[in-house]
Amino acid sequence: MSDSAHASFPTHLHSLLRARYGAQWSPEAAQSDTPANPVVENLLNHRSVRAYSDRALPDDLLQTLTAAAQSASTSSNLQAWSVVAVRDTARKARLAVCAGNQKHVAAAPLVLMFIADLSRLRRIAEAADVPSLALDYQEMFLVAVADAAFAAQNAVVALESLGLGCCYIGGMRNKPEEVAAELALPSDAFAVFGLTIGYPADDVKTDVKPRLPQQAVLHLEQYQSEQAQSLADYDASMNAFQQLQHMTELPWTTQASRRVRGPESLSGRDRLVSALHTLGFALK
Amino acid sequence: MSDSAHASFPTHLHSLLRARYGAQWSPEAAQSDTPANPVVENLLNHRSVRAYSDRALPDDLLQTLTAAAQSASTSSNLQAWSVVAVRDTARKARLAVCAGNQKHVAAAPLVLMFIADLSRLRRIAEAADVPSLALDYQEMFLVAVADAAFAAQNAVVALESLGLGCCYIGGMRNKPEEVAAELALPSDAFAVFGLTIGYPADDVKTDVKPRLPQQAVLHLEQYQSEQAQSLADYDASMNAFQQLQHMTELPWTTQASRRVRGPESLSGRDRLVSALHTLGFALK
Repeated sequence: MSDSAHASFPTHLHSLLRARYGAQWSPEAAQSDTPANPVVENLLNHRSVRAYSDRALPDDLLQTLTAAAQSASTSSNLQAWSVVAVRDTARKARLAVCAGNQKHVAAAPLVLMFIADLSRLRRIAEAADVPSLALDYQEMFLVAVADAAFAAQNAVVALESLGLGCCYIGGMRNKPEEVAAELALPSDAFAVFGLTIGYPADDVKTDVKPRLPQQAVLHLEQYQSEQAQSLADYDASMNAFQQLQHMTELPWTTQASRRVRGPESLSGRDRLVSALHTLGFALK
Repeated sequence: MSDSAHASFPTHLHSLLRARYGAQWSPEAAQSDTPANPVVENLLNHRSVRAYSDRALPDDLLQTLTAAAQSASTSSNLQAWSVVAVRDTARKARLAVCAGNQKHVAAAPLVLMFIADLSRLRRIAEAADVPSLALDYQEMFLVAVADAAFAAQNAVVALESLGLGCCYIGGMRNKPEEVAAELALPSDAFAVFGLTIGYPADDVKTDVKPRLPQQAVLHLEQYQSEQAQSLADYDASMNAFQQLQHMTELPWTTQASRRVRGPESLSGRDRLVSALHTLGFALK
């Protein structure tokens, strides 16, 4: 196929896949039926951005990101989530401390805090003077977390299409009660994660991080455990990425097993159930 | 601004916002700094699609959707999720029954089952002969659910950009153990939701469903409870949507409060904790 046939899609799907899967990606595995349209290209080009320029954000950014986030699916249209936009310097600094002193939380011009929010449904039931006992179940907590994640991911896709970069901050779960107090959350609301947002710093290079081979994650009809070779291949891809980024070289499988070793490796999040009970989630 | 200035963005952000927020959207609230680029347009145009044509899916669809899904962020790069692609007619029919007899699960040419998957990390730790006690905590279950949701939402965005439609199926949580058996899931793996996928049927009209006003969901610096007027406005917008779709007319606030009334309104999901324990999640 001539180059001109792809004039409107300058980036081929194949090159995006090679960036995403690293050296392990086999050219033979790439088919060409689906062109890399601008949306797919935007998705596959994702990389986390933790260093931001001081370029001002667009005036209507919150409007656009909120609309994108709200356009995501939500379980039974319950819309069990909220977002708190934090721009105040002192508040960002305090949230950065809550999240384990992650400096980019204080440095980002905008931090969106995504809230698993059952409080709105509680208020609606209370206003109608009807019970809302289902909100006390793990199922509804899961619904709220998934709703918040769908919404946040749409916001990420939108902001990256606008040339902005971002990084999720799971460290907000290190201190759930402190974060809730900082954001004045009502009962039945919990900050699942933050999202730091800004234009990428010009002088910090970011790269697409490789992911596990598709065959380790995608199962056909029924689940099949991955081959050991898949994990070895991925350790090799991640090693190449670590070299590129001048990071400490450590096999991904070693990193991952350290991260799940025990409660002491959870940065305080081993007490999440207790914190959620305090915040109003019974998790029945 | 002349029309020609927007030649490459035929759909203005303002019209997308009006479709998303309905009659309640005030023209004065719309600013114009951010053009509706193709990615934002794709996001704001989302609608659930439950009726599919018999048009064959692209050969490399799974490759593209998996790459898009894997390109989403994942907590600490742990990639604690998997996806099972179901195309077998009999299996889809059985899953449709699990999900409360939702016919579109059986009728869709492809159903992606998104798995909160801690089993891969368990296998990695076992292969290294190190403990993996952190996997028994609620925090790691939440990580797996969020990872699965980020991944799924990226797949949704990608497939919609390819002209396909989809619908999330939370009903898969009605019978977690039966679904796990159908998919041959190992311990520490749980199907959080399904996603039905196909080209939209030509003869079934879909519309953008209105969402809550932005001021009910977006909070500046700290949480503020929504005004009663916001909810009344939204009931009116949803009423107009229900008329357009020839659906039963019922205020959204009434629907929502019925849905959270008590455990009996959860379609069996009030026993989710017990099911998760059976599937290997201790949720400490």
